[in-house]
Amino acid sequence: MNEQLIDNLVDQVVAKINEERGFLVEASGRHVHLSQEHIDALFGKGYQLTIDKYLSQPGQYAAKERVTILGPKGALHNVVILGPARSASQVEISATDALPLGVKAPVRESGDIEGTPGIVLMNGSKTVTLEKGLIVAKRHVHVSAADAIKMNVAQGDIVKVRINSEQRSLIFDDVVIRVSDKFVTAMHIDYDEANACSFKKGTRGYIVK
Amino acid sequence: MNEQLIDNLVDQVVAKINEERGFLVEASGRHVHLSQEHIDALFGKGYQLTIDKYLSQPGQYAAKERVTILGPKGALHNVVILGPARSASQVEISATDALPLGVKAPVRESGDIEGTPGIVLMNGSKTVTLEKGLIVAKRHVHVSAADAIKMNVAQGDIVKVRINSEQRSLIFDDVVIRVSDKFVTAMHIDYDEANACSFKKGTRGYIVK
Repeated sequence: MNEQLIDNLVDQVVAKINEERGFLVEASGRHVHLSQEHIDALFGKGYQLTIDKYLSQPGQYAAKERVTILGPKGALHNVVILGPARSASQVEISATDALPLGVKAPVRESGDIEGTPGIVLMNGSKTVTLEKGLIVAKRHVHVSAADAIKMNVAQGDIVKVRINSEQRSLIFDDVVIRVSDKFVTAMHIDYDEANACSFKKGTRGYIVK
Repeated sequence: MNEQLIDNLVDQVVAKINEERGFLVEASGRHVHLSQEHIDALFGKGYQLTIDKYLSQPGQYAAKERVTILGPKGALHNVVILGPARSASQVEISATDALPLGVKAPVRESGDIEGTPGIVLMNGSKTVTLEKGLIVAKRHVHVSAADAIKMNVAQGDIVKVRINSEQRSLIFDDVVIRVSDKFVTAMHIDYDEANACSFKKGTRGYIVK
């Protein structure tokens, strides 16, 4: 065989192995991202969030601080704040969460909050009213720049991802690919989606061509 | 063309149209089926449930009577009872519901309750302890005997069903086909599954070959 043929074969084997290996799936519970302005309003001027636990995405962490989300019908207490501070605050809930709050939240990609509903956040007696930012996160896969090449996907691609489980296997469509050299490859779904596929720790996802 | 060829063409066109037409999808909230023995225990000897609203499946109805489901960690109040009485009681919750109750419920087909956890039901001061019957319903399609032929499916088949929505399309795998001449064709999913595909009233399902 000539070299080109061998290279081609190696590439195909690597692609196939990567496809079959899949990637980790993580279920995200409801959480809040805050701007420094809103951290100030809820915790005091210049307050710094306390790191409780680092998340899979480098630099991202769950803070020790919690807030209450206040809707017209009800509240969700003890909601985790994810740090570090962002340029705009954003509240990510599930469609299940929207019901007791008495709000409607659109499915949106993180950061795409123009025209989304506002919501009230509370810490003790301090409240802040967000004018927008209440969303149900669109399911997505964080892909490292290196893995994007191996997986043959690009920023913004919409893909199908197969999840295997004993009783509730499914294929998620409308999964957004987000690529960054700051990412670790992992798929994020919310708990409605997690329950719909009997997600458990260690569940893996496989892109379906 | 000869007659056989025409018949064959007609069959193919009918099959294709039926495939493209799909079937209605319905989301089921948490509910309880009760044996007459358990109706007696909760509402009094010989009590008859009051029909509030008929459901899509002929003869099945939501009763006016409600019960509380009591778990080790919490309770779900005002849970609808579906009638008529069955030979065995069964409590159908979502995986989301299991959390506040503090129980684990397996994904099972309706009626397949051997080895499932028990649970306590309450009406006022009356309680009954089910020894088994707490399940998360396995997603399924009720198919009328006539539609089963048109759709080329049989009792017990496991199929894939595509759901189209603006942001959360998906393909449910592990969908059980249940055929009866007493059924009206309709797919049943729970609210975790409904939220995972942005279900709304009128959503249709399409079997994927």
